[in-house]
Amino acid sequence: MNGISLIPVTGIGEVQDGDIIAELIAAATTLEEGDVVVVTQKIVSKAEGRVEAIDPDDPLAHKAIVEREAVRVVRRRGDLLITETAHGFICANAGIDLSNMASGWAALLPVDADRSARRIRDGLKARTGLSVGVIVSDTFGRTWRKGVTDVAIGCAGVAAVIDLRGTEDALGRELQVTEVCVADELTAAAELVMGKASGVPVAIVRGVDPSWLREGSVADEIIRPPSEDLFR
Amino acid sequence: MNGISLIPVTGIGEVQDGDIIAELIAAATTLEEGDVVVVTQKIVSKAEGRVEAIDPDDPLAHKAIVEREAVRVVRRRGDLLITETAHGFICANAGIDLSNMASGWAALLPVDADRSARRIRDGLKARTGLSVGVIVSDTFGRTWRKGVTDVAIGCAGVAAVIDLRGTEDALGRELQVTEVCVADELTAAAELVMGKASGVPVAIVRGVDPSWLREGSVADEIIRPPSEDLFR
Repeated sequence: MNGISLIPVTGIGEVQDGDIIAELIAAATTLEEGDVVVVTQKIVSKAEGRVEAIDPDDPLAHKAIVEREAVRVVRRRGDLLITETAHGFICANAGIDLSNMASGWAALLPVDADRSARRIRDGLKARTGLSVGVIVSDTFGRTWRKGVTDVAIGCAGVAAVIDLRGTEDALGRELQVTEVCVADELTAAAELVMGKASGVPVAIVRGVDPSWLREGSVADEIIRPPSEDLFR
Repeated sequence: MNGISLIPVTGIGEVQDGDIIAELIAAATTLEEGDVVVVTQKIVSKAEGRVEAIDPDDPLAHKAIVEREAVRVVRRRGDLLITETAHGFICANAGIDLSNMASGWAALLPVDADRSARRIRDGLKARTGLSVGVIVSDTFGRTWRKGVTDVAIGCAGVAAVIDLRGTEDALGRELQVTEVCVADELTAAAELVMGKASGVPVAIVRGVDPSWLREGSVADEIIRPPSEDLFR
């Protein structure tokens, strides 16, 4: 297998309600067939108008939106709310945050980030003729491990989870670990060239295994149904 | 910021008890100053003799080792045990698995994977004169999200968690999300060129932010103390 390149896309600028993300990406960089394009949730939410005015002087304004958007509070300690969202994500503060937002505005999660990803993929296909995978990323905490990492909240044209069942390991023994969440690994990789502070909202992962470039869905493949869940 | 390259290291071959991992890596590839070298736990455990014979015809043999190595069972359902290890990791089956092992052998986790990483880093420095970061990786499941991803269980010469407190976002607002687990993101990225089935046990991440190349420790920086934990 050859190597993979992680390439930051700069020059996207401030995104506004109604902007077409695929147009901004196509103008800012040159894609190649089979690229995976990772786009941060923040600019997707802005382009889709998923922002809400809040009173910057009211310390409870953010919390009020969190309580409204969460379908369930899984854990609560002090100001920290671990919530389940309507999408089935379990994350802090219903995924709503204020960083990289103008004062007085909060960004909500996209209504359906798989659909957001499909829209960007289709737009890139229409403009460039290229088939690429698209992932919408967000920053989540984890149980038991400190520090946040970026994960996929939506995808299109790229697998969320690949199933290695029936595959043998290097010694010819059938693999025990069979389902790998490549979408989250691609997203974590992309974050390495984005950074939280540098305002690079898009990165390209170039050189991925072509077999991963199939239809994919975070909602269908990654969200663990409550019935299979041991921790909620 | 420039891009990052993910480079698989092939030709390591089967690793035996007593092998010096740094020697094998230095012979198989050409490193550059500031590279981060990600090494799978499986070959570290083999080189350190952290393997144990099990009866391949006894379906409970694996489970017996898991029960012995776990300091606590966090959740149990059917054959699945979510365990806390002596290191403080919470993972399935105390991190013990049989894939990429000869029949009749199980691999245990290294006693101290930060130390394993320091040993590899020192060995690479001695052989090549280069300062590199080293991460020991393993494959863990996650709460709430299906599919496994690779995470760091030890590191040396590279930060586990970077703290962005006091950093401003692209709009000049102080960041809310401040601690990013770059070690886990580097590890997930490396897995993209390793694969579970292809038997590539080492990958290089080239071009990382030089400020990440400091002393680091998974035990000190990533393991969340039980007192701060909401899910055990």
